Amino acid sequence: MQYYARPETGLDPSCVNEAVEAAFAAFARGETEMPPKVYVTLPGGDFRTMPAYIPALGLAGVKIVNVHPGNPARGLETVMALIVLLDPPTGMPYAILNATGLTDLRTGAAGAVAARHLCRKQDGIELGLIGAGRQAETQLEATSAWLGIDRVRVWSRRSATAEAFARRFSRFEIRADSLERTADCDLLVTTTPSREPLVMDAWIRDGTHINAIGADAPGKQELDPAILIRASVYVDDPRQAIHSGEINVPIAAGGYSIDRIAGTLGDVVIGRGGRHSDDEVTVFDSTGLAVQDLAIAGVALRRGGPGVELVFP
Amino acid sequence: MQYYARPETGLDPSCVNEAVEAAFAAFARGETEMPPKVYVTLPGGDFRTMPAYIPALGLAGVKIVNVHPGNPARGLETVMALIVLLDPPTGMPYAILNATGLTDLRTGAAGAVAARHLCRKQDGIELGLIGAGRQAETQLEATSAWLGIDRVRVWSRRSATAEAFARRFSRFEIRADSLERTADCDLLVTTTPSREPLVMDAWIRDGTHINAIGADAPGKQELDPAILIRASVYVDDPRQAIHSGEINVPIAAGGYSIDRIAGTLGDVVIGRGGRHSDDEVTVFDSTGLAVQDLAIAGVALRRGGPGVELVFP
Repeated sequence: MQYYARPETGLDPSCVNEAVEAAFAAFARGETEMPPKVYVTLPGGDFRTMPAYIPALGLAGVKIVNVHPGNPARGLETVMALIVLLDPPTGMPYAILNATGLTDLRTGAAGAVAARHLCRKQDGIELGLIGAGRQAETQLEATSAWLGIDRVRVWSRRSATAEAFARRFSRFEIRADSLERTADCDLLVTTTPSREPLVMDAWIRDGTHINAIGADAPGKQELDPAILIRASVYVDDPRQAIHSGEINVPIAAGGYSIDRIAGTLGDVVIGRGGRHSDDEVTVFDSTGLAVQDLAIAGVALRRGGPGVELVFP
Repeated sequence: MQYYARPETGLDPSCVNEAVEAAFAAFARGETEMPPKVYVTLPGGDFRTMPAYIPALGLAGVKIVNVHPGNPARGLETVMALIVLLDPPTGMPYAILNATGLTDLRTGAAGAVAARHLCRKQDGIELGLIGAGRQAETQLEATSAWLGIDRVRVWSRRSATAEAFARRFSRFEIRADSLERTADCDLLVTTTPSREPLVMDAWIRDGTHINAIGADAPGKQELDPAILIRASVYVDDPRQAIHSGEINVPIAAGGYSIDRIAGTLGDVVIGRGGRHSDDEVTVFDSTGLAVQDLAIAGVALRRGGPGVELVFP
C-alpha cells in the first residue's frame, strides 16, 4: 500500500477536467455506485464520508473530508481530505492519498465541465467570481484551461482579499469590483460559505451561466431564490443537492420544489438536455461527488510520482 | 499523521472487552454519532464505510472494510480493513490503522460483552462454537478472558477444520463434534458465512445464550427462525440488524417482525433490560458497530507502539 502526500502536484488541469467529465458521464449512465455522502457532526465542524465505485475506470474507494470553519485561526485549513483506494476484485486497500489539494482541483474541474456544456459561448467570456478564496483560484484555473476568458471581475467580503486575488492573477484582464458589477457577466462562479443570498436576480443578465459552488451543507446558500426560479437548474446529484446544495434552503423554505430541477450535469454531458437558448439563465448547483474524487485520484496515480510504502496487509 | 501496520499486536483482551462495553453503553445513552454503515458492491464482494464519533472518548473516524469470500483462493484474507481517525475539534486525520486484526478483536469483544450480560452464569460454562475460522478463535479468546469456560464443543463444515481448531485450543477441555451436540450448551457462538439455518430450535436447551455473529449482510442467516421466536433477541443496532443481521432474512420472509426485538446490547449493558429467568433463551444478533472500531482503535493508540510518520497536511 502506498501513501501519497502531494498527489496534486503538477496535475494538468485539462486532464483533470476530462477525467471529471468522464465521471459525470458514467454517473449519468448509471454506470457508477455512489451512495449519498454521510455527514457526522463534530465540535466546530463536521466530516463527510464519500464511498464510490466506477467499474469502467476500475476505481473504488472512499474520500473522508472535514469542514471546520474555525481552522484558519489555528493555522490549519478549513477543509482537509484523504482518499483511500481499494482494488475492486479483492477489496484490498492499495493507495492512500492526501486529498486536500485534489478536492480543490476536482471541484474546479466540475465548474469547468459545467461551463463547457452550459455556457452560451466558449470564448470571449466575461467571468465573475463571488468569493476570492482557494476555490475561486481553482475554478479560474480549471475553467481557463478549457474556455477563453476575456476579462475577470472578482468580489470578496474584504476588498483587500479581492485585490490580492486580482494581483495574483494579473495574467488575466482582472479587477476587484462590487457585487453587482461582478455579477454582470457571462459566467458567474460563487464560492463563498454564505448562509444568505449574496447575488440578486436583478443583477443577472439574460444568458448567464452560474456555477454555484459554495453551498455544500444544509443552511448554506449564495443566490437569490428568484434566480433559481428564473433559471434552468442542473445539479450534480439530486439527492445531495436537495440535502446540501444551493437549492437546499429554498426547498426547506418552500420557495423551490424538487420537480423544477432541469437535470444533472452528467445528463447534459451525455447529451440528455442542456441550454435551450442564448437568453436562458442556467445554474449548476455543485455539492461534490465521490466519483469526482475517484476520477482525480486515478489521474494522480496514473501520473505516478513518489509514494511511501506502507505494510499492508 | 501516523500509520500503524500491526496495532492489534499484544492487545489485552480484557482491556478490549472493557472499551467495547463502554462503546455499547455510550451508544445506548445516545452519546455517540453513528450513521448506519454504507455498502458498495464490488465484483466478488463489497466494501462498507463506517463513520462514527464518540465525544466522551474524543474519538472520531471511519472504518473501511471489505468482504470478498473468494480472497483466500488468491492468498488474501476475506476481510481487510483500515481505520482513519480524525481529531474532533479540527477534523484533521492523525492516524491510519491497519484494522484487519482489530476488526476480529472488536467482534470477539462484542460477543464477550453479550455473554457477560446475557449468559445465565459466568463460570462453569459449556461453550459451543459453530464455525471454526478466525472469528471462532477471537470469540473464544475474548469470552474466556471474562467468563469461566468448562468445556468447548466445535463444529465446522469440514471436520478436519474443527479438529485442527480443537488442537490449537487444547488448553481448554475441547472436542470437535456434530452440529446437534455442539448446539447443546450454555453459550452458543455462530460464526459461519451461512445463507441458510444451520442450528435447529429443537437442539437448543432452555437457558442457552446465543451469540449470532456470522450474519452481517443481506441474505445471511445461521439460526432456525423458530429460535428467534422462542428467544429474547438483542441486537447491536436495530437499523443494521434489520438490514444485515441474523434477523434480516426472517424479517424479509415475514417470519419475524421488528417489534419482537427485545432491545439493544447497549441497553442491557446500562441496565435497561436483560435476562428475565434462567430458562429464557437469549440471542445477541451482532452486525458490528463503527463505535466498536473507534473504541478498539483508541485502546491500540493509548498502548502506543511503532507507527510510520506520514506527511499531512
